[in-house]
Amino acid sequence: MLPLFFRAITQRTTIMKRSRKITALAGGVGASKLLLGLYAEMDPRNLTIIVNTGDDITLHGLKISPDLDIVTYTLAGLIDPKKGWGFRRETFHALQRLMIYGRENWFNLGDRDLATHIHRTALLAEGKSLADAADAIRLALGVKSQILPMVNEPVPTIIDSNEGPLHFQEYLVKRRAEPIVRGIRFHGVDSAKPAPGVLESIHQADRIFVCPSNPLISIGPILAVPGIRDALRHRRNDVIAVCPIVGGKSLKGPSDKMLAQLGHDSSATGVAKLYADFTGTFIIDPQDRSQSAAISALGLQVVVVPSIMKTLAQKRRLARNVLAL
Amino acid sequence: MLPLFFRAITQRTTIMKRSRKITALAGGVGASKLLLGLYAEMDPRNLTIIVNTGDDITLHGLKISPDLDIVTYTLAGLIDPKKGWGFRRETFHALQRLMIYGRENWFNLGDRDLATHIHRTALLAEGKSLADAADAIRLALGVKSQILPMVNEPVPTIIDSNEGPLHFQEYLVKRRAEPIVRGIRFHGVDSAKPAPGVLESIHQADRIFVCPSNPLISIGPILAVPGIRDALRHRRNDVIAVCPIVGGKSLKGPSDKMLAQLGHDSSATGVAKLYADFTGTFIIDPQDRSQSAAISALGLQVVVVPSIMKTLAQKRRLARNVLAL
Repeated sequence: MLPLFFRAITQRTTIMKRSRKITALAGGVGASKLLLGLYAEMDPRNLTIIVNTGDDITLHGLKISPDLDIVTYTLAGLIDPKKGWGFRRETFHALQRLMIYGRENWFNLGDRDLATHIHRTALLAEGKSLADAADAIRLALGVKSQILPMVNEPVPTIIDSNEGPLHFQEYLVKRRAEPIVRGIRFHGVDSAKPAPGVLESIHQADRIFVCPSNPLISIGPILAVPGIRDALRHRRNDVIAVCPIVGGKSLKGPSDKMLAQLGHDSSATGVAKLYADFTGTFIIDPQDRSQSAAISALGLQVVVVPSIMKTLAQKRRLARNVLAL
Repeated sequence: MLPLFFRAITQRTTIMKRSRKITALAGGVGASKLLLGLYAEMDPRNLTIIVNTGDDITLHGLKISPDLDIVTYTLAGLIDPKKGWGFRRETFHALQRLMIYGRENWFNLGDRDLATHIHRTALLAEGKSLADAADAIRLALGVKSQILPMVNEPVPTIIDSNEGPLHFQEYLVKRRAEPIVRGIRFHGVDSAKPAPGVLESIHQADRIFVCPSNPLISIGPILAVPGIRDALRHRRNDVIAVCPIVGGKSLKGPSDKMLAQLGHDSSATGVAKLYADFTGTFIIDPQDRSQSAAISALGLQVVVVPSIMKTLAQKRRLARNVLAL
């Protein structure tokens, strides 16, 4: 039992921490681990998530936003925890029939998941924006944090590869990240505008977190939207990035391979170089402690905390550590 | 063992019968029973089915053609035999999630069934016609008969009721056929054209069958398409209609109630009156034998054969009897 005085202070500090406004930049599966920890460790109503939409694709006439859905399903507690995407105990009856009709089936679309794409497509056809749709979906699923697409317009990520240009989903899912990456483009991004609330949430946040997502094709598209990188530079001291490369390997997905193929270091330092202009604090795993000096030399404050998040406890611990900064 | 001479004649007659071209006018569940019998009893490649599309509806942005699908699924052997529509062992996971998004859920959309609507909607968006889509779907499902929508354009059946105008599906499914019917319209039908092949199949068929479907809202829309009723009148001697009312009751659906509410007799004779101008032969069930004289007086040849089709054997027997005419 703490003396009353200390209890009051502790409570007040906790309340202050919980009421801080956080904005997070996120891709899909990797980001969702930290986001789930944040959602549990802070007042989720003070969390705004800016999500990559470069992965978005139209298939079978349906507008699919994989990263928006992964983040939303995760925070709604609906995600398949083994795969990190899609609904738990999902069925694929519609997809099996789409195959019989000769439609492409390399992109997994579960039956429950289809409802989201059908709903989103219908909302867009009615004249709603992607941001409207994302908000309607997260509210219907009871998610308390704001989930914003980076832009309302389609800005598909195109991978220029040894097999020619590929939509990112074709590269990742259909071709299993096997083609050699020669360049990455975000088609139409130069004329895109940040979705309503995106810049405001960066300006107004107490802290801005860059989730441990692929720096090239999850965070990269967000940074490429006119105005966002500049807004982050203005908040550099309050930007905290969690490194998605640990021990030279991606925590998730092909980041390491893509970094190497594009001439970057596939290391914490390599990522730090990409983020140095807008990031004040860089979080690395103890495995990469030896890179602290190199990263500090880039002008970033280095914080070493365990960054591998397999269990919910690990997600919450990293979230607590990041929130404590 | 028949003598060789008779066997040859029997075979020749069978071959001739099997090679006759049949065109059938069809709604959904009621029609599919006779069609399944025909499919088994004749060369299905010689069967052309002209299907009502007045029931078609766009829900959640998806183009749904209930009668085309019921006919196609039935002949493909995929139909749920208890309900008469949708896939066997169907799941409804997507529909349950659409409800959570606040979307209307009164129209049952199974997960497997959704694939058909998604595929059709995508084909139409690519510029294909409804007929192209119907053909692609029946071919993918291995159906050997031609399945033609009556028209390519949307001509929704509107029920003018004591609750105001209702789309037919709203009347039937959402309002369970409870409103009182004051009139029936096929919106836009005056400027619609028979789909390619429809008039030709009526001109060229050896026999034209009118399936035991609702005369007002299944056969009625087909007859309302400019040119179709006239084409049938020209073939009156070869038009054989199977009465959908037996003992004063619909074999399926609300035909009896709708006939009565619109001032028609809810009887075999009542249906015969609606068909007399284009039908040469009218098939009634033994229960309605007493109406033979009244129907004959309308100028139709009456054939009395069992018309209730619960088992496959009954469907095949009625089909054989109709084909034998």
